[in-house]
Amino acid sequence: MNEITMKTTVDRLLLQALREDMPDEDVTTNAILRERTPGSVDLICKQKGILAGLPVFARVFTLLDETTQVECFFHDGDPVEPGDLLARVHGDLRVLLSGERVALNYLQRMSGIATYTSQAAALLKGSKTRLLDTRKTTPNCRIFEKYAVRVGGGGNHRTNLSDGVLLKDNHIGAAGGIAQAVERARAYAPFVRKIEVEVETLDQVSQALQAGADIIMLDNMSLEQMRQALAMIGGRAQTECSGNVTRENIEGLKQLGVDYISSGALTHSAPILDISMKHMRPSAQKDGCV
Amino acid sequence: MNEITMKTTVDRLLLQALREDMPDEDVTTNAILRERTPGSVDLICKQKGILAGLPVFARVFTLLDETTQVECFFHDGDPVEPGDLLARVHGDLRVLLSGERVALNYLQRMSGIATYTSQAAALLKGSKTRLLDTRKTTPNCRIFEKYAVRVGGGGNHRTNLSDGVLLKDNHIGAAGGIAQAVERARAYAPFVRKIEVEVETLDQVSQALQAGADIIMLDNMSLEQMRQALAMIGGRAQTECSGNVTRENIEGLKQLGVDYISSGALTHSAPILDISMKHMRPSAQKDGCV
Amino acid sequence: MNEITMKTTVDRLLLQALREDMPDEDVTTNAILRERTPGSVDLICKQKGILAGLPVFARVFTLLDETTQVECFFHDGDPVEPGDLLARVHGDLRVLLSGERVALNYLQRMSGIATYTSQAAALLKGSKTRLLDTRKTTPNCRIFEKYAVRVGGGGNHRTNLSDGVLLKDNHIGAAGGIAQAVERARAYAPFVRKIEVEVETLDQVSQALQAGADIIMLDNMSLEQMRQALAMIGGRAQTECSGNVTRENIEGLKQLGVDYISSGALTHSAPILDISMKHMRPSAQKDGCV
Amino acid sequence: MNEITMKTTVDRLLLQALREDMPDEDVTTNAILRERTPGSVDLICKQKGILAGLPVFARVFTLLDETTQVECFFHDGDPVEPGDLLARVHGDLRVLLSGERVALNYLQRMSGIATYTSQAAALLKGSKTRLLDTRKTTPNCRIFEKYAVRVGGGGNHRTNLSDGVLLKDNHIGAAGGIAQAVERARAYAPFVRKIEVEVETLDQVSQALQAGADIIMLDNMSLEQMRQALAMIGGRAQTECSGNVTRENIEGLKQLGVDYISSGALTHSAPILDISMKHMRPSAQKDGCV
Amino acid sequence: MNEITMKTTVDRLLLQALREDMPDEDVTTNAILRERTPGSVDLICKQKGILAGLPVFARVFTLLDETTQVECFFHDGDPVEPGDLLARVHGDLRVLLSGERVALNYLQRMSGIATYTSQAAALLKGSKTRLLDTRKTTPNCRIFEKYAVRVGGGGNHRTNLSDGVLLKDNHIGAAGGIAQAVERARAYAPFVRKIEVEVETLDQVSQALQAGADIIMLDNMSLEQMRQALAMIGGRAQTECSGNVTRENIEGLKQLGVDYISSGALTHSAPILDISMKHMRPSAQKDGCV
Amino acid sequence: MNEITMKTTVDRLLLQALREDMPDEDVTTNAILRERTPGSVDLICKQKGILAGLPVFARVFTLLDETTQVECFFHDGDPVEPGDLLARVHGDLRVLLSGERVALNYLQRMSGIATYTSQAAALLKGSKTRLLDTRKTTPNCRIFEKYAVRVGGGGNHRTNLSDGVLLKDNHIGAAGGIAQAVERARAYAPFVRKIEVEVETLDQVSQALQAGADIIMLDNMSLEQMRQALAMIGGRAQTECSGNVTRENIEGLKQLGVDYISSGALTHSAPILDISMKHMRPSAQKDGCV
Repeated sequence: MNEITMKTTVDRLLLQALREDMPDEDVTTNAILRERTPGSVDLICKQKGILAGLPVFARVFTLLDETTQVECFFHDGDPVEPGDLLARVHGDLRVLLSGERVALNYLQRMSGIATYTSQAAALLKGSKTRLLDTRKTTPNCRIFEKYAVRVGGGGNHRTNLSDGVLLKDNHIGAAGGIAQAVERARAYAPFVRKIEVEVETLDQVSQALQAGADIIMLDNMSLEQMRQALAMIGGRAQTECSGNVTRENIEGLKQLGVDYISSGALTHSAPILDISMKHMRPSAQKDGCV
Repeated sequence: MNEITMKTTVDRLLLQALREDMPDEDVTTNAILRERTPGSVDLICKQKGILAGLPVFARVFTLLDETTQVECFFHDGDPVEPGDLLARVHGDLRVLLSGERVALNYLQRMSGIATYTSQAAALLKGSKTRLLDTRKTTPNCRIFEKYAVRVGGGGNHRTNLSDGVLLKDNHIGAAGGIAQAVERARAYAPFVRKIEVEVETLDQVSQALQAGADIIMLDNMSLEQMRQALAMIGGRAQTECSGNVTRENIEGLKQLGVDYISSGALTHSAPILDISMKHMRPSAQKDGCV
Repeated sequence: MNEITMKTTVDRLLLQALREDMPDEDVTTNAILRERTPGSVDLICKQKGILAGLPVFARVFTLLDETTQVECFFHDGDPVEPGDLLARVHGDLRVLLSGERVALNYLQRMSGIATYTSQAAALLKGSKTRLLDTRKTTPNCRIFEKYAVRVGGGGNHRTNLSDGVLLKDNHIGAAGGIAQAVERARAYAPFVRKIEVEVETLDQVSQALQAGADIIMLDNMSLEQMRQALAMIGGRAQTECSGNVTRENIEGLKQLGVDYISSGALTHSAPILDISMKHMRPSAQKDGCV
Repeated sequence: MNEITMKTTVDRLLLQALREDMPDEDVTTNAILRERTPGSVDLICKQKGILAGLPVFARVFTLLDETTQVECFFHDGDPVEPGDLLARVHGDLRVLLSGERVALNYLQRMSGIATYTSQAAALLKGSKTRLLDTRKTTPNCRIFEKYAVRVGGGGNHRTNLSDGVLLKDNHIGAAGGIAQAVERARAYAPFVRKIEVEVETLDQVSQALQAGADIIMLDNMSLEQMRQALAMIGGRAQTECSGNVTRENIEGLKQLGVDYISSGALTHSAPILDISMKHMRPSAQKDGCV
Repeated sequence: MNEITMKTTVDRLLLQALREDMPDEDVTTNAILRERTPGSVDLICKQKGILAGLPVFARVFTLLDETTQVECFFHDGDPVEPGDLLARVHGDLRVLLSGERVALNYLQRMSGIATYTSQAAALLKGSKTRLLDTRKTTPNCRIFEKYAVRVGGGGNHRTNLSDGVLLKDNHIGAAGGIAQAVERARAYAPFVRKIEVEVETLDQVSQALQAGADIIMLDNMSLEQMRQALAMIGGRAQTECSGNVTRENIEGLKQLGVDYISSGALTHSAPILDISMKHMRPSAQKDGCV
Repeated sequence: MNEITMKTTVDRLLLQALREDMPDEDVTTNAILRERTPGSVDLICKQKGILAGLPVFARVFTLLDETTQVECFFHDGDPVEPGDLLARVHGDLRVLLSGERVALNYLQRMSGIATYTSQAAALLKGSKTRLLDTRKTTPNCRIFEKYAVRVGGGGNHRTNLSDGVLLKDNHIGAAGGIAQAVERARAYAPFVRKIEVEVETLDQVSQALQAGADIIMLDNMSLEQMRQALAMIGGRAQTECSGNVTRENIEGLKQLGVDYISSGALTHSAPILDISMKHMRPSAQKDGCV
């Protein structure tokens, strides 16, 4: 997650999260530490997985105090093991204590998603099929979760309802058919948008092809149906397969030869990766590290 | 989640989530439906669990269009089964389509947490011990997740760093001991705050008792240590047990007789409950239901 | 501009504009009218053109007072003539006075853009070429201006930097060539994005084709060069022509057979359409129209 | 535009504009440049005019990255010619690419207004009459546009409805006459406000004088009427002339001897001044200029 | 305070205050009342004074629930006595309980200011001198406090630093003298601004007159000096007297004949007026009053 | 007020206050000083009292320009005397002028509250009773006012409706009695909350004790009643006495032996402490102090 995205999009979400956790002040820390107290703390991995969100973790602390320094020993995308020292944070102990929970809440969730995605993507290795996320993300956390999917080796489907056209059954029904729906979308949407059509039958596949759909999404079809659909399409549109795909069942789809498989589970079912902050200690000399 | 909390705290989070999903407009829906089109859609349960978040689900649609009507056939806290018709939403089809994903993202996550909590809490039935959440919630979603824990039969620990005092090892270290830490907290924090102390040894239990802690949290202790600690405390403080508690291991703690068990897993490891919107259809007559 | 887009995206821009014009209160109106005074006012066209923004105009007044009623006699996209009564606003005179300037500032600018776009688009009639806008919009007014372009018969290019990929010379230079740039974009960007490449020479056209660009933008080429480029492309990519296109020079491009012509002038050079509010009068009876 | 106004008022408008153009991230730039890449770019003038908005242009980049350095070779108010190198921006190429459009959108519009204003003001040279803007500005851009008018040699009329009293025909009608309207305004408005009255007839001029108006605005009067009005006023009030004043017709008003002429065209009809960013290049050595 | 000012300026301050008092929810009320419970409560005056802020008080409740009804028996500006029933609020008891403190905090402070102002203004009765407030208001409460001053019979000085010119000693020093300061202000400030100069000596009075100041503020002068200053000015400028004016010492200034006396004490030293909500009761029948 | 609380909670309130005072720009200062002008100014105490808010005062200036330096000669909590030089601010004179009023408005009010609190607390010296504030604070200023109470030697009652349980007569009435109310609160509220019950009779004291209230608030009782109540309670609950307590009558409560006395007057009736900025001067050399 680069610095510019941080400035324009992420910072205010982090500040909002900090305010959620401190509408007033950190009463415990402020009771104990009445003034700036330099020190450091270690970020320790406690579970095997893929790291994601370290720049976000770090940014929480520099937002609270720009002199905080985060020494990183690993980077986003790296595999991590229990016991690994991921990073060391140097700064005012009050900042380390007050920011700890928000920073970890982001890091653990993002790393959990990257880990889950990485495991699911590994099951597709050797095929041409690429794993994608969906819009089934946690509200007000999408940018973090879609980034974590990329870190884990997945790709991103459309970001939101404004930047992609996906004609589902309800849209098609309302338009009076696939042909009409595609036509209206092409007339209305910015021309840089691809038109994706969701289909559930082979007949619909044929209609979508005729209408010139850029992408055809095979939704909740059987393996056999999907095979036939892909044969019908024959490369004339990109293909996506969707519907309750998880780490557990994805391997069965590997031989299909579909271009993309999208899975809501990447973002709505990934458990967190356990990471914690340990060994907080004051600096030997007061004016040491910061 | 009551209407007043919606107005003051929740509405702006929902609007923010809607803007996250529609920074501009829902280009697909607006391409197909060029004007107000009354209709309805069913909210169908697809997995066994406990329902939580129906007022939030409904509010997403009324925020988009205050004339939308949500007919509820179940309520938060109700057990639900696959196939149950949970609610029916009547309104402009464009509103139903544009709000669907955000509304479901909230409902599924909240119901997932309520379901997990309910299952974990059931394992404590028969004991005096009550199950609590933690601050390990998704950033900018805490109010939804803590509510879902309550719906599932759990209780809430402190809401944030401003409204509770919890002296952890780092605070105790910085203060120079439990006695000093408690004393400073009592002098600084609003007097309505209880003082909670986290301990890891029996010696610390004894210090916390002497310092007059209101609550003593036994952190990562063995069952045997916890039994001794509870005997030492003998009701002179409330007791809480904490540390990697999950649905899988909670039953072992049931016989301890601790007042509270807190578990981050309730909010950071609960999978979603599968719920979907089906059977969208225009009203028979245009000016029908809304 | 539909009601849902109003709620999620437009309302807060309108409120912000109202606060820009009234950081405190409308001191003149409030000095004269000390209480609610029902009345009405006419919206009169003073210049020939295409109307755009009437729902925005109306929304300014209903945001100030939801009981305000705006009777519309024309609709967005309609051609209008000097003297036409476009709408009549009924409500509290204080609301009509305090909202007048903001409402007109939007309406006049949006209608100006629709008018300019309509005139430019008319010059392409008979060809397959469609006129597009650019990102050269007024800051914090893009949604209004891109809508006005559509009303005027133009199409929208990408909405922002997040929802479209356009590889310009600087991106290509940094990537080390068109092939590499396209490859990196395809690997990074959500797969629903089309990849557009800006080219300035025929050699670049050939590279873009080979790299599999979805759209090729011919930037600042001569007519002759563009003809050759289009022949080379031969339908294997969509084509766009760009560079200082205005109402004055667009007709020369008509015979080229390019798919799209984009013009910044639509949004940065369109003069306003003169429209004003006239004949404000109190209602005959106090409790009349509102 | 000074640094303090930037901090309190402008920064958040610029951030808002950046978010409008990047609700998520600059997907093209981030695909190509995966890390900080120092470099520079030239700001080149392409049209004759008056420069305005250079500090705003620069601020866009330092908001994205505070280490960006903008070397200015011209200043606001300077006349500029095609080919002039106005400034050179040194910083992370990703910042230069991602901020380019927003920075130019402000600079081009502000310079366009300054240029138009300067040309119109020049036509009044030799007279005592000063050129003023109006509230016919682009919504949410007023502070930029009113500043550009000053840079171009114009003056500012009231900033908004809260900080000036201007009694128009509707206010006068509602109050029951000019005398009553002025009296109510004087009683209600902060005493530091001047009272301005808009008049359309000589009879109204006389009433406004008697009522003690500080400023009398002659609205849509003929030259002859204005001459008579100014004679009647004889310096007992400041005078302003208004109504569809443009670059094209302003000279005819020069000999009148009115104190002020206000023109909405300065802000609603000024075309942009063409300025572009060219010659983007990486630094010779990575750690060079920033 | 009229409804339009509420919508554009006041509502968000009230919502912000409600969130300050309920960052999460009203835990006490929500524990006791689990559902909508219609009822009413009386607003009772407990101290003699002038009422101000009743529309603000009412708006707090309708913001929480738009069906709340506030029956007003008195109006802003009315003298009130202990025991007076000022208003009765009908609505959901949860709304009445949750909004009570914020609504009263505004009402008591605003009434306190109106009362103090009224008493001070009464001491000037019979003279031509009018009492004014200053910018010494509580941060983020200015609009309420300046309104309360007007309700109490005072007038408003400038609203903020943007809408009035007041040249103080530091400005004059920096400009190099009163003449230069006035000249620069006239050249820079919108022409609708009056130019006010703060003077401390008779020599400065003379300079301010010569420079053509619209208003001369006599700051911290003795009564004798002020008398001489007013004689010198002889109506050629408006006059204002300032400097630690309170209810206690204002009467001594009455005979001076100055146009305005400004007093920071109106807003920074007025004690609250004691008003409380009493006799909360559920409605006889559930669906009664709301 | 520590730096972290500034960043998360205070900064945006200060910026909001600065925008309230400068919706546009400081037209006077900007007219006179057209460029950065280094200089300094003294902060002088004019009244005896307790200083509070110096970090807030300083932060106003560093928010406007981070290079501003505030040299502090006193600290929050220090007693101050007329003539004391409290601090010296070095920076751009435009920053010192534009921020002066907002900075002083905070400092004077906060010091006023600390002074009043300190005087009231002094009257309890020698007793075990501690003085507390209430929620009767100025809207959107609570964090400043509660901090000032602590600086003055008082303690804080609950911060808001979300972080404390206080069962008042209306809650008790709605619940059907003290026992039921306490029970419901204990079931609903986070377990870290103490339960406080407001009582008006000895009978209620007894009920509150039986219900296990953590804190019993004796509201508007006579001295004699309070004595009996405290005897009944006998240390089994914390005790608080409340109801129109001021500097004038607090001493009478000293001998009661109640744990806490809460007083709304600390925040709603404290007059400001007079402090001003004097001797503004440019630096001898331009590039001197900043």
